[in-house]
Amino acid sequence: MIGPMHRRAALLDGRFAIVAGVPSSDPARAEAAGAAIGLPEGRAYPSITAMLAEEARRPDGIEALAVMTPNDSHHAFAAAALDAGLHVICDKPLTVSGEQAEDLLRRVRGSGRVLCVTHPYAGYPMIRQARALVAAGAIGAVRAVQVEYLGSGLAARVEDTPEGARRWRLDPAKAGPSLVLGDIGTHAHHLACFVAGAPIVAVRAELGTLVPGRRTHDYAEVALRFQTGARGRLSLCQAAAGQDNHIALRVLGETGSLDWRHSAHEQLVLSPLSGPKQVFAKGMAELAREAEDAARLGRTGHPEGLLEGFANLYREFAEAITTGIAPSTMPDALDGARGMWFIDAALQSEASGHAWTECRLQPV
Amino acid sequence: MIGPMHRRAALLDGRFAIVAGVPSSDPARAEAAGAAIGLPEGRAYPSITAMLAEEARRPDGIEALAVMTPNDSHHAFAAAALDAGLHVICDKPLTVSGEQAEDLLRRVRGSGRVLCVTHPYAGYPMIRQARALVAAGAIGAVRAVQVEYLGSGLAARVEDTPEGARRWRLDPAKAGPSLVLGDIGTHAHHLACFVAGAPIVAVRAELGTLVPGRRTHDYAEVALRFQTGARGRLSLCQAAAGQDNHIALRVLGETGSLDWRHSAHEQLVLSPLSGPKQVFAKGMAELAREAEDAARLGRTGHPEGLLEGFANLYREFAEAITTGIAPSTMPDALDGARGMWFIDAALQSEASGHAWTECRLQPV
Amino acid sequence: MIGPMHRRAALLDGRFAIVAGVPSSDPARAEAAGAAIGLPEGRAYPSITAMLAEEARRPDGIEALAVMTPNDSHHAFAAAALDAGLHVICDKPLTVSGEQAEDLLRRVRGSGRVLCVTHPYAGYPMIRQARALVAAGAIGAVRAVQVEYLGSGLAARVEDTPEGARRWRLDPAKAGPSLVLGDIGTHAHHLACFVAGAPIVAVRAELGTLVPGRRTHDYAEVALRFQTGARGRLSLCQAAAGQDNHIALRVLGETGSLDWRHSAHEQLVLSPLSGPKQVFAKGMAELAREAEDAARLGRTGHPEGLLEGFANLYREFAEAITTGIAPSTMPDALDGARGMWFIDAALQSEASGHAWTECRLQPV
Amino acid sequence: MIGPMHRRAALLDGRFAIVAGVPSSDPARAEAAGAAIGLPEGRAYPSITAMLAEEARRPDGIEALAVMTPNDSHHAFAAAALDAGLHVICDKPLTVSGEQAEDLLRRVRGSGRVLCVTHPYAGYPMIRQARALVAAGAIGAVRAVQVEYLGSGLAARVEDTPEGARRWRLDPAKAGPSLVLGDIGTHAHHLACFVAGAPIVAVRAELGTLVPGRRTHDYAEVALRFQTGARGRLSLCQAAAGQDNHIALRVLGETGSLDWRHSAHEQLVLSPLSGPKQVFAKGMAELAREAEDAARLGRTGHPEGLLEGFANLYREFAEAITTGIAPSTMPDALDGARGMWFIDAALQSEASGHAWTECRLQPV
Repeated sequence: MIGPMHRRAALLDGRFAIVAGVPSSDPARAEAAGAAIGLPEGRAYPSITAMLAEEARRPDGIEALAVMTPNDSHHAFAAAALDAGLHVICDKPLTVSGEQAEDLLRRVRGSGRVLCVTHPYAGYPMIRQARALVAAGAIGAVRAVQVEYLGSGLAARVEDTPEGARRWRLDPAKAGPSLVLGDIGTHAHHLACFVAGAPIVAVRAELGTLVPGRRTHDYAEVALRFQTGARGRLSLCQAAAGQDNHIALRVLGETGSLDWRHSAHEQLVLSPLSGPKQVFAKGMAELAREAEDAARLGRTGHPEGLLEGFANLYREFAEAITTGIAPSTMPDALDGARGMWFIDAALQSEASGHAWTECRLQPV
Repeated sequence: MIGPMHRRAALLDGRFAIVAGVPSSDPARAEAAGAAIGLPEGRAYPSITAMLAEEARRPDGIEALAVMTPNDSHHAFAAAALDAGLHVICDKPLTVSGEQAEDLLRRVRGSGRVLCVTHPYAGYPMIRQARALVAAGAIGAVRAVQVEYLGSGLAARVEDTPEGARRWRLDPAKAGPSLVLGDIGTHAHHLACFVAGAPIVAVRAELGTLVPGRRTHDYAEVALRFQTGARGRLSLCQAAAGQDNHIALRVLGETGSLDWRHSAHEQLVLSPLSGPKQVFAKGMAELAREAEDAARLGRTGHPEGLLEGFANLYREFAEAITTGIAPSTMPDALDGARGMWFIDAALQSEASGHAWTECRLQPV
Repeated sequence: MIGPMHRRAALLDGRFAIVAGVPSSDPARAEAAGAAIGLPEGRAYPSITAMLAEEARRPDGIEALAVMTPNDSHHAFAAAALDAGLHVICDKPLTVSGEQAEDLLRRVRGSGRVLCVTHPYAGYPMIRQARALVAAGAIGAVRAVQVEYLGSGLAARVEDTPEGARRWRLDPAKAGPSLVLGDIGTHAHHLACFVAGAPIVAVRAELGTLVPGRRTHDYAEVALRFQTGARGRLSLCQAAAGQDNHIALRVLGETGSLDWRHSAHEQLVLSPLSGPKQVFAKGMAELAREAEDAARLGRTGHPEGLLEGFANLYREFAEAITTGIAPSTMPDALDGARGMWFIDAALQSEASGHAWTECRLQPV
Repeated sequence: MIGPMHRRAALLDGRFAIVAGVPSSDPARAEAAGAAIGLPEGRAYPSITAMLAEEARRPDGIEALAVMTPNDSHHAFAAAALDAGLHVICDKPLTVSGEQAEDLLRRVRGSGRVLCVTHPYAGYPMIRQARALVAAGAIGAVRAVQVEYLGSGLAARVEDTPEGARRWRLDPAKAGPSLVLGDIGTHAHHLACFVAGAPIVAVRAELGTLVPGRRTHDYAEVALRFQTGARGRLSLCQAAAGQDNHIALRVLGETGSLDWRHSAHEQLVLSPLSGPKQVFAKGMAELAREAEDAARLGRTGHPEGLLEGFANLYREFAEAITTGIAPSTMPDALDGARGMWFIDAALQSEASGHAWTECRLQPV
C-alpha cells in the first residue's frame, strides 16, 4: 500500500516528478518494475548506491529521495542520500534506534538539506485546527492528552502463514525492538506533541504481547508527562480484532476539551466547560490558516482522505526545499529523532518495572 | 474547484496525461494559464474549435476531451469533440435540455466513442456496495428509495454580490431551466437509479425558490415511481443554510433497509427486519467485487474521499476507451440523457399542478 | 406497551394516583386485572359508564381519565368523561374523524376541563429547545421543515398471523381511515408545527400501501405549507424493514438549520450559515427555560428517555388542572383536532390526485 | 439528584413503597421534608437510630433501607440496618475503606439479608448484552478491557465557592481517601469486571490532581490485570472540562471486539475480525435473556435512560429479597467490597511508585 501512496501524494500537487527509483535489487526486475510505474528508461536502479552514483552524474539528476523500505534500512539510505546532497522524505519510524536517528539529525543540521518524516495524520486539516485552537488558548492550559491507536492487522497469528513469514514487521531485527511502538506508537507520540504544542519529557510504559508466541510487542499503555507538566497516555494495540486503524485524540484543557476520531477525521469537537459543543469541519469558514491551507476542497461536505494528508507533507517538503525554510507543521528530523528517543525511554521504563523514564529531547 | 478536481482525478491512476486545453478565450491569457497548469507549449488554445483542428493534425493529438464549462456549452463542445472522433467525459448536467442530450446520445451510439458523465458519488465504494447488495437481494424487493441532497451554498442572496453576479449557475440561460434539478437533482436521480438497479419512470414534483427574488429553483421535492413499481422521493435544496453538501440515501426493501450518508461515506448500514444492524466499511473483507475495486487503500480505517470517487469514473472511462466496453457502473450517455429527461418531466409536473408525469427512458 | 407507559408517566412526579380503571369488560376479569395493577378494591370497573357513574358518587372520585383504548372509542369515552366533569388525557390520534375531534373540542371549550393529547416526543427537552431556538430567531425565518418517521413494525405481513389478527390497528373501522397518518403521521404533524411555531395550512399527499393486501396505508409522503409560507414535507412509513422508530426533524431557516434525530434525542444540532455547528444537549447550562424544565436529571450525560417525555405531558396536564392554565407546550384539544383535520386534508388530497388541500385550523 | 433518582427507581415497578425516612437531623425539618416527599405522618425521623427503633415496633415497619448519604456514613447506617434485620441498598462507594467494606460483607454473609450496591450502568440492557456476548464467546478470549470515565463537574475550582464548600465530596474525611476512585473509579472497576466476567487481581495506578490546590484526586490512570490474565486500563477524570459523564467501554477479544459508549447507551457494537460490524440495540429481537429483561420498552427506537438502569437494580434487589436468591447481575456486598479493595490497591500502587499491586478478592 505504501508505494502507491507515496507516488500519488508526491504527484498530487505537481511539485514533484518521479524520475528514478530502486524497485528491485535484481537489475532485470528493477527495469521491468520501473517501467510498470512509469520510470524513464535507464533510471530504474538495482541499488541505492547505484542510483545515487548515476544520478549525481546527470544534469537532471534526482534532488530528493523518498525512503519506504523496511525500517532497518532507513538510516543507511537516508544517510547516503543526505551525504549525496539530496533531500529525504522517510517513512516512520525514522530508524530502528535512537543512536541512528541522532546520527541522521546531525547530518541534517547545517547541511541545508531537508528531512521530512511521514506522519500523515498530522497532515489532516482538523488535526491542524486542533493544534491551532490549543495554541490560541481555546481550551486554556492543557491538562492531559489521551490518544488511542488500535489496529486489527496483527490480531490473528499471521506469523505461521506464508504471508506472515514475509512480514518483516514481525521481525525485530528488521522492524526495530518494539513493533507497536515503531509502527503506530511513533504516530501517536507525534500527534500528541503536535497538538499539545509541547514535547513529552517522560514516559511510564507497559509493553506487552497479546498474541501468544509473537516475538515483538503488539500492546502498549504509555503514561506521558509533557514539558508543560501536562499528563497523558497512549493506548496502543495492533492485535485489536475488529478495530479499524482507530485513532482517537482527546485534549483536556482548563476551560474545555477537544475530541477527534480518525473515523470522522474531517470533524473536530470542542466541548467548552459551559454551553454547546462546537463542531469544526474541514472546509468551513473561520478555520485557522494552517487548517484552511491543508484542504484542497475548500468547502465542507466534500470529503478528502489520507492521500491528501500525506500529500500535505509532500507539499511542505517541497516548500522547505524551495524556500529553505521548513513549515513549522512539517515533521522534521528532530521530530523523527524524538520519536525514536520516545521508544528508547518506553523500553527502558518497561525494563525497569514501569518507572517514569526521561525522554531525550535534543542530541547530546 | 472543479478544474483541479478533474486534473487530479484524471492523473491519479496514470491512465491519462493532460496535454492540451482551452484555459481562456484570450490567446495570450490562454497561453499563460496553460503554462500554469503544466500544458505543453503551444497546446493551450483560445477555443475548442482551434484545439480540435490543431490537435487533429498532430500525430500525438488528444484522444479525449473533459468538459467542465458552464452547462449551456456542454452540448456544443461534446458534439464537436465526438464528431472529431474524440471520447468525452462531461460534467453533469449533461446538457441544458432533453433534446440536446438526446442529440448527444444519438451521436455516441454506434460511433465507437465513449461518453462518461461525472456523477462521482456513484464512484464511492459503499455506494457500489449498496448497489451490489440490492442486486443480490440482501434486502428483498425494493419498496422505496429516499434521497436527500442539501447544500448551503445558495442559502444567502449571493445574486447581489459581485461574486454572485459571476455565478453563471444562477442564470437559467447558462445553467438550464432549473438550477436545483440540474446541479444536484441529477446527482440524486442517478444515485437513486444506480443503487435501486432500475430507472425512474415517473415523477411528481414541487419546485420552488426559497430565496426571494431568485430567478431559478433552489428547492425541490420530487416523488418517484421506479420501473419496478417501487416508490421514492428526492428532497433537494441548495438554500439549506448550514447543511454541508449533505446527501443521505435510504433504500427500503421487503426484508431490510440500507442507509448511507455522505458525511460517513465509507460506511453503509444494513438494517435487517430482525437481528443486529450490519455496518459495511470500505476496505473490509467480504465486500462485493465492484466495491472492492473502487478502493485504492484496501484496508478499513484508511480514509479516501471525493477525489478517489471522481478518479474511479476516470478509470472506468479509460477502461471503456481501451477495451471498447464500458463498465456497467460507469455513468454513460444514456444515464446523462435520463438525467435531462428527468428534469423535463419534473418541470412539466410542476407546471401541471404536481401531477404524475412520465420520464422518457430511451431516445425517440 | 402503552398501559404501563401511561401508569409510570402518571406516577413519576407524584402528581397523580391511579385509583380506578376499566381493565376489562368482564366484571370478574376486571377485578382481577385491576388488582394486578394495584387498583383499590371495588374500583376496577367493567365499563366506562359504570366507572363514571360510581366514581361520581364517591367523595374521593376520580378527577381525570386517561384514554388508551383503540382509536374508535376515544371520542365516546372522552366525551362521556368531559360531560361528567372530568379532565381527559387521550392517546393520539384524538379520534377517528375530524368531526369527532371538533365535537370534543367544542365540549372542552368553556368547560373549564383540560384535554391533553399524548404526543410524547414533544416532551423531549431538545424538541423544546428547538422550538425555543426557532422562536428566538436563532436560525432566522423558517424556510422549510422536514420530518421523517419510519417504523419497522408493519414491514412484514402480520395480518395473516394470529397476533396480527388481533392488531386492531390494521382494521380501518377501529383505527381510522389511514393507519400511517393516525399512528405516526399525527406525531410528525404535531412535531413540525410545535417546533416551527406555526400551523400547517395546506398539504399535498401521496398515500400508499407497501405491503400487498393490506387494507390501510403504511406509507405517506406529505408536502406541507405552513401559515407563515414555509414549505416542508413528512416522510412516513410503517413498513420500513429495519428502521427503528426512526424520527428525524430538520428545520431550514434563513441563517441556519436545526437537526434532531430520535436515536440521539438528547442532542440538537444547530448549523449556522458560517462557523462551527453547535450541539445543544439535555442538561447543559444556557438552555431555554422550557428545555431545562423538561429534564429531571439536570446534568448532561445522564440519559433520560421516552418515559420522561411522556411524564412531561402528565406534569403539564396536572399543571393545567391545578392552575386552570395549560402550559403553551401541552398538546391540547385544538392540537388534537388539527391532527385530525390534517388527516382529512391528506385523504382528500390523495383522492384528488395529490392536489394542494387546505387544512382546517379552527372549528366551524 | 440522587434522592429523587432512588425514589423514582424504587417505585417504577411497584415493588417498593416509600414509607419512612430520615430527611433531616432536625425533628421539625424532618417532618416537613418528609411530608414534601410524601412520607406518612410520623414516619419522617431525625436519625437512623430513631427510625430503626421506631419502625421495629410497628407491625408494618420498614423491610429495607436505601442509603444515599455522604460516603463516610455508609458503613454505620448499613451496619445498623443489617443488624436490625433490614435489607440494604447503598450508593457506591460502599464505604470509605476496605476494612469497613469487609465488615459489612461479614455481616451480610449468613444473615439472610441482601445488600445491593447501586452501579446503575450495569443495569443498562446493552451492558448486559455485552456481558452475555463475552460469556458466550462471541469475541473469543478477552485480551484487554479499556474503560474511560470522564466528567466535567470538578473541572473548575469549585472549592472556593460557597456551593463548593458544601460539596462534601471534596473532603477526603467525608468522601474517602481518593475522590476520583470512589466516585467514578468504582463504577468503572465494576463495569470492567461485570462485562469481562472476571475479577481484577492487580492494578498499577497513577493518581493525580489536575486542579491546583485540590485536596483529593481528580485524575487516575489505572492499568489492570484480570484473573484470566487479560490486561486493561481505566482512564478516570473528574476535571475533564466539557466531557459529559462520558463512559466508554471496549473489550478486545481474540476474534473481535465490543464498543459501548454512554452517549449511545442503547447500542452495542461488535466488530469481528472480518466482515461487517454488528450493532445490537436495546429492544431488538435475538438479544440475550438478561439484556431483554432489562428493557421495559421492548422495542427498538423507544429510548430508556438512567432511571430504568437504576430501577433494574431495585427490581433485582426486590427479587433477591422475595426469593432469597440474588440475580447474578445484581451488584452485591462482595462487588462493593471488591470496589473498596481496588481503591486500597490503587492507593498503595501510587504510593509505591506505580508498581503492580494485588487486589484482595475475598475477606481474610
